Amino acid sequence: MIKNDTIIALATPSGIGAISVIRLSGEKSIDIVAAFFKSVRKGKSLNNQKSHTIHLGHIVSEETLLDEVLVSVFKNPKSYTGENVVEISCHGSKFIQQEIIQLFLKNGCRMADNGEFTMRAFLNGKMDLSQAEAVADVIASNSAASHQIAIQQMRGGITNELKELRAQLLDFAALIELELDFSGEDVEFADRRKFIALVTKIKLVLKRLIDSFSFGNAMKNGIPVAIIGAPNVGKSTLLNALLNEEKAIVSEIAGTTRDAIEDEIIIKGVAFRFIDTAGIRETKDIIESIGIEKAYQKAENAQLIIFLIDANKFRNAESSFLSEINTIRTRFPNKRVLVIANKTDTISSTNTINLQKEIENLILLSAKNNIGIEALKNELTSLVNTGALSNNDTIVTNSRHFEALNNALSAILSVQQGIDLEISTDLFSIDIRECLRHLGNITGEYDVDKDILGHIFSNFCIGK
Amino acid sequence: MIKNDTIIALATPSGIGAISVIRLSGEKSIDIVAAFFKSVRKGKSLNNQKSHTIHLGHIVSEETLLDEVLVSVFKNPKSYTGENVVEISCHGSKFIQQEIIQLFLKNGCRMADNGEFTMRAFLNGKMDLSQAEAVADVIASNSAASHQIAIQQMRGGITNELKELRAQLLDFAALIELELDFSGEDVEFADRRKFIALVTKIKLVLKRLIDSFSFGNAMKNGIPVAIIGAPNVGKSTLLNALLNEEKAIVSEIAGTTRDAIEDEIIIKGVAFRFIDTAGIRETKDIIESIGIEKAYQKAENAQLIIFLIDANKFRNAESSFLSEINTIRTRFPNKRVLVIANKTDTISSTNTINLQKEIENLILLSAKNNIGIEALKNELTSLVNTGALSNNDTIVTNSRHFEALNNALSAILSVQQGIDLEISTDLFSIDIRECLRHLGNITGEYDVDKDILGHIFSNFCIGK
Repeated sequence: MIKNDTIIALATPSGIGAISVIRLSGEKSIDIVAAFFKSVRKGKSLNNQKSHTIHLGHIVSEETLLDEVLVSVFKNPKSYTGENVVEISCHGSKFIQQEIIQLFLKNGCRMADNGEFTMRAFLNGKMDLSQAEAVADVIASNSAASHQIAIQQMRGGITNELKELRAQLLDFAALIELELDFSGEDVEFADRRKFIALVTKIKLVLKRLIDSFSFGNAMKNGIPVAIIGAPNVGKSTLLNALLNEEKAIVSEIAGTTRDAIEDEIIIKGVAFRFIDTAGIRETKDIIESIGIEKAYQKAENAQLIIFLIDANKFRNAESSFLSEINTIRTRFPNKRVLVIANKTDTISSTNTINLQKEIENLILLSAKNNIGIEALKNELTSLVNTGALSNNDTIVTNSRHFEALNNALSAILSVQQGIDLEISTDLFSIDIRECLRHLGNITGEYDVDKDILGHIFSNFCIGK
Repeated sequence: MIKNDTIIALATPSGIGAISVIRLSGEKSIDIVAAFFKSVRKGKSLNNQKSHTIHLGHIVSEETLLDEVLVSVFKNPKSYTGENVVEISCHGSKFIQQEIIQLFLKNGCRMADNGEFTMRAFLNGKMDLSQAEAVADVIASNSAASHQIAIQQMRGGITNELKELRAQLLDFAALIELELDFSGEDVEFADRRKFIALVTKIKLVLKRLIDSFSFGNAMKNGIPVAIIGAPNVGKSTLLNALLNEEKAIVSEIAGTTRDAIEDEIIIKGVAFRFIDTAGIRETKDIIESIGIEKAYQKAENAQLIIFLIDANKFRNAESSFLSEINTIRTRFPNKRVLVIANKTDTISSTNTINLQKEIENLILLSAKNNIGIEALKNELTSLVNTGALSNNDTIVTNSRHFEALNNALSAILSVQQGIDLEISTDLFSIDIRECLRHLGNITGEYDVDKDILGHIFSNFCIGK
């Protein structure tokens, strides 16, 4: 499966900047670049340089000087891919990038496929598959929480959890299969008590990892929060109040201009996706009913619901807030519902107190005047158990891993059932193999299907 | 003027990619990074590494692992700026870029100003001012021709032309001023014959450089070509035919997608800016007249005019093409006018021959059917004297240099006049000083005004 050709790609973002980096990987990469590199120091050749050294010189094609560059040399196996790697740091012009890449495409390189550098790193044993997959997550992560999860995975989080257990299970599988060879003789090589303990342990770890997925997924993609409420209670104003402030914070840092944040906000390192919905009220209008039904659907898909009420509508004990709130809580029994009273600047302090008496844990704010927004943010982040992000806990964010973990759990439950029912060893030994296969798929220890590999790395950018 | 603080900036284009490079420069840059860098090899510190070496490790801020990075170390004076320089190659995520830059901003760095790395390189004597200015041109160049001119300037093209002459003139200036000290004694330290030869030589070089500017400027910004002609002769179709083909060629290369090429086309390495105009005809309509006047203005500003006629309109000897062509040539006596007959696929071969007989150097094509477009391109590029781009000729593209060269020429002409009129030495010694000052301004040998420096580098991107 290991390819011996030399690949090339732009490693830095496309566009104009001070510098750009073009990366080559393959046995011949150093020779290929050396043929077109003229060092500023006479007689110096790239071919006999040490690994991890940088050289100033010119890339020259048929007497034409393409650029003054810095060339970094990394030698097999001490490189990202495990192969010889050359990084050419040139001026950040699209023209120069093209010219240099074209030069090497004509002279022994081919364009790298998406993620091919990382795929080679995996194939050459520089990282396991789950680590390779985490590289894309590290690049894509846009909040402290998702970044920390991705970095942990890149450092081998899930591998560390599973490797030892898989090795132990593999030992037992061998012993049990040995028993099968001696099936006529009623021997037990595998200590059943120890085996049952291992199966139980595997079951617990798998369950914990599987449980972490919904949290991990929310951290990776942003925790969906639906804002619902009657028309004109100020849902959009609240969304803007949340967005504007954070946008301003983000843009304080040079070069952070972001394409269409839309309704995603990072609050204290956690990404939230706020979903504005149509106003909810009883209506006979068919079109409006459809909009309200959609609002409920969005709330259904959210992890958290903000139910916004208009404090101004609170007049006396006959107010219908409680019944409204109950309707929502009944409709979404498994979701956390935050009740927030907006426009509190327009009501008397007596009414404010009465309102708070009527509704438990009510959050008061004025979105328009930016009052109480900070408190709401604190409430939101405190709801997210960031304690789960300690370095000792592995969080699963990858749906391929999630699926494999579920399959492994099914298999190990079958094994346990087999033990409990004292069925024939040869039957549950199939389940053990099945469990091993699914666990191995995560880290790539088990031969992974080429199509799956292709799919995984096709999500990478070229150059990684 | 040399600053001792440490600056930091993103050196690669902003956005998501495989890797990003963050650059620091300043005496303390290595120490600053070392404090947050944990090498993968235990006990290894950045502080005692050789220049031009690369180190794998982690950037860690308060126990939080920000990223796995490669750190390149360059030691004063062997670096781009001439100061200690560190380049951190991290994963190409905006979040990581921000986190790392923020970390170092809090720990002894400040954000670099636009072009500050290159300004430091100039102030530390790593390059002269004209070379520093060329760095921005190298990054901005988008055609082989403009790139080659910029690269040549970055390698010291104009400096090499002027340095020796300026040194010789400086010697004479000193001798002539010495004469002034002995003014009562009628001595001549400066050999007048040699001095006159030098002045003549300087004059010639300055004139040659000044003359190169209009060509250089066109190469840098694209040669403006106006397409004019009667309504419906196919001007826009021709423009599209020229554009489409080249666009397709450009997009063959991955990552070359360009923002709004509009009407700029690079043909065989030379950039042309095609300007489509309103149809020209005799009219009494006031609005239409204004449009036609604008078309003429555009033609006036162009370096080359394409006059397009509709071959289909050619019926017999009474055709008015010749008078039309004469009108254009009379209106623009100093411009090269290319006459092109479009829609030649619709006329008989006899008429084609007659047409060619009537109009000298006529180019025949059918823009709609893409016939003759290639020949037109050949004609266009042959009109541009690319021979002027040999490595021995310096082309001036920078308007600041152009202005300084003109000022230097005025001064040297005054010197010559002074010699011719045998006026008092003390009078033309002022003109010599003036000439020296303007020449020195180009390369920055003469103390350049801080405001001018600021202006020059403010056009750079941050990080360069």
